[in-house]
Amino acid sequence: MRLSQYHLPALKENPSDAEIISHKYSLRVGLVKQVASGIYTWLPLGLKVLDKIKSIIKEEMNKSGALEVLMPCIQPASFWQESGRYDSYGDEMLHIKDRNERSMLFGPTHEEAVTDAIRGVIKSYKNLPLLLYQMQWKFRDEVRPRFGVMRSREFLMKDAYSFDKNQEDAEKSYDLMYKTYIKIFRRMGLTPIAVKAETGPIGGNLSHEFHILSETGEDTIYYDSRFSQLLESEDMQELRNIYAVSEGMYDPTKCPISFENLSKSKGIEVGHIFYFGDKYSSPMNAKISLESGQNVPIHMGSYGIGISRLVGAIIEAYHDDNGIKWPEAVAPFKIGLINLQIKDNSCTEAANYIYNNLPIDEVLYDETEDSAGVKFTRMDLIGLPWQIIIGKKFINDGLIEVKKRAGEVKFMSVDAVIEHFSSM
Amino acid sequence: MRLSQYHLPALKENPSDAEIISHKYSLRVGLVKQVASGIYTWLPLGLKVLDKIKSIIKEEMNKSGALEVLMPCIQPASFWQESGRYDSYGDEMLHIKDRNERSMLFGPTHEEAVTDAIRGVIKSYKNLPLLLYQMQWKFRDEVRPRFGVMRSREFLMKDAYSFDKNQEDAEKSYDLMYKTYIKIFRRMGLTPIAVKAETGPIGGNLSHEFHILSETGEDTIYYDSRFSQLLESEDMQELRNIYAVSEGMYDPTKCPISFENLSKSKGIEVGHIFYFGDKYSSPMNAKISLESGQNVPIHMGSYGIGISRLVGAIIEAYHDDNGIKWPEAVAPFKIGLINLQIKDNSCTEAANYIYNNLPIDEVLYDETEDSAGVKFTRMDLIGLPWQIIIGKKFINDGLIEVKKRAGEVKFMSVDAVIEHFSSM
Repeated sequence: MRLSQYHLPALKENPSDAEIISHKYSLRVGLVKQVASGIYTWLPLGLKVLDKIKSIIKEEMNKSGALEVLMPCIQPASFWQESGRYDSYGDEMLHIKDRNERSMLFGPTHEEAVTDAIRGVIKSYKNLPLLLYQMQWKFRDEVRPRFGVMRSREFLMKDAYSFDKNQEDAEKSYDLMYKTYIKIFRRMGLTPIAVKAETGPIGGNLSHEFHILSETGEDTIYYDSRFSQLLESEDMQELRNIYAVSEGMYDPTKCPISFENLSKSKGIEVGHIFYFGDKYSSPMNAKISLESGQNVPIHMGSYGIGISRLVGAIIEAYHDDNGIKWPEAVAPFKIGLINLQIKDNSCTEAANYIYNNLPIDEVLYDETEDSAGVKFTRMDLIGLPWQIIIGKKFINDGLIEVKKRAGEVKFMSVDAVIEHFSSM
Repeated sequence: MRLSQYHLPALKENPSDAEIISHKYSLRVGLVKQVASGIYTWLPLGLKVLDKIKSIIKEEMNKSGALEVLMPCIQPASFWQESGRYDSYGDEMLHIKDRNERSMLFGPTHEEAVTDAIRGVIKSYKNLPLLLYQMQWKFRDEVRPRFGVMRSREFLMKDAYSFDKNQEDAEKSYDLMYKTYIKIFRRMGLTPIAVKAETGPIGGNLSHEFHILSETGEDTIYYDSRFSQLLESEDMQELRNIYAVSEGMYDPTKCPISFENLSKSKGIEVGHIFYFGDKYSSPMNAKISLESGQNVPIHMGSYGIGISRLVGAIIEAYHDDNGIKWPEAVAPFKIGLINLQIKDNSCTEAANYIYNNLPIDEVLYDETEDSAGVKFTRMDLIGLPWQIIIGKKFINDGLIEVKKRAGEVKFMSVDAVIEHFSSM
């Protein structure tokens, strides 16, 4: 993509109301633009990150055997009256009346909708286990939306739902999602830590939050410092035994971890999984017949990942004073190509040649008339993993600077540059 | 995908309230499930079709130079008060109050939102032309939602917006979208016909509707029967000269087409493009400076494709009495693999071998215990372009039936089957 033809409305100044670095950078770089309090438009660069995150999630969810569906944003209030949550959910729910005065709502979550979707359809234990997931925009009318896409009102969530014939099978589905979540976050370059959690308004008796460690997180976590190695395990028992608790649950007299292996850090919640049995299937009458002939409510769980929030969480985990440092798997483009000498024919020819010989979707090509300083500052701010810089050293020695955003620099010929990135 | 592990809640009976064939088949096959009047959940099979349509649109829009963004579902009412449409738009708009009693709405279209997104950001003629597009769910509270996904209340739209410095450039953007639309629809196996149209509530002075000819369309069109050959042209003048008018605009005394070249048919509207100049940029103050230094409102156009409606329109165009006949480009799977003899080891081995050697995303593998009759009927109903059938003829002669949904049949060995579909 040629920068001169791109829509990248980067801000020159730091936005004054941005309290945290991901909010500041996502506005300055031009990932999103605010539409109203807690509501954003995703600009081309931000949408590319969102799409890369979605692809990773989709791949891993499909590998787990989950099937993708898409439930509507607008739901009838009657589902929530059936489950008993309509009145208890509170003011975060966006209530709507349609033209016929029917009570509707903008889904803050989809337990009721998915229970309605399978009741009467899934009738026998033979149709189970079943895992359905979607990636859909939700609306939660937060009292105080802030931190940009980290705590917005309209936000994108991956929500999955498991359906099983009994608790034993339901726990297997829960474990499968637990492992799938670890894979998903690690593929994005993140190190997730699973914290045993309260179940809150979703309900149920088994729940874990997945956190990314970050100074700007809103929660404090005590955890085994060796957890990132322990995550390598495929054994569910070992994964579950990794010590990690929220501040409220930490008791130094009962902590099983020795002092030198105990860490304390702030965390950002990026996922939350629940097993809640028949909390929805029972009142909404979603039942199956067992082999014995008995009719029982389906055992359910739900599994959320905050997709739009992850964009913020990744920036919190990967940045420096000059800007974002995207992990390669979610970078909007892998490479920033900078021509510092647009009036020099040899530089422009070399830059165009490189641009035309690398995958167009992975190169952001700065061929603008801006000064070298503006170009460097902007490319560091955008934070693509690699920079290819063509300037005086090319005119003098035929060499191109290939730089990692993290710092490492090499000089190469045009052909070596193409070879280097073609094998990526 | 193994059918036994898929979520395909097909109905045994025709749904009683389905008036048209696409509505009937999309419920019977299990593409969608109704949630409320005019609101649907997209089931795994239907979502795959929707995603294939989205991919084609995305590819062609990107090729045209348009940049993808994503605007929110929920917009502040203030945008529409600025443009002057808030009161005039009528009861189709879903009005919402948030917890602070601010007036919001679920976007029925995004002209205001996109104008807000670029005002103050695009300041100079040098930043133009610009084409932005999104694929986002809209809500229009129809008086009488019907025809399934063809006229639903919550629906998916591709909407694009062009920004230009003057009318001449704006008409070039309009022509570019016109040509892009023809490419998009043709890639889906459809033959679009562009009808000069009224501009309606979007406003403006130049507008075309894109129709798919179908007996169940709601509009009547008079057109040059030779139009499908004429669509091959790259020349905008020739494309625009193709005669096609709505019934209201047809005047036999003024029709330039000779009687033998004139056709009359019902059409389904699947796209609509508008040039409306400064209708939104002027009241919303989205201005640029020209080379002369003068400040002028940006010239805008908007370009819609009904993505979810297209699923219905394609079924209307491609079906027979036995079910759907998906064009290959949008088929949820390309191949239906049927094992008629699941208790015969050689058949099951051959079926598994074929399944494991073809792209898993493109094969729906019926390895259920159902009877041959049920399997044939179901696969015809689902309407995948190809069927691979393994049964008695394999046991006796080592031959597998490879059948086009359209009718044509061949018999092949296992290896020939794999070779045949690998080169697809």
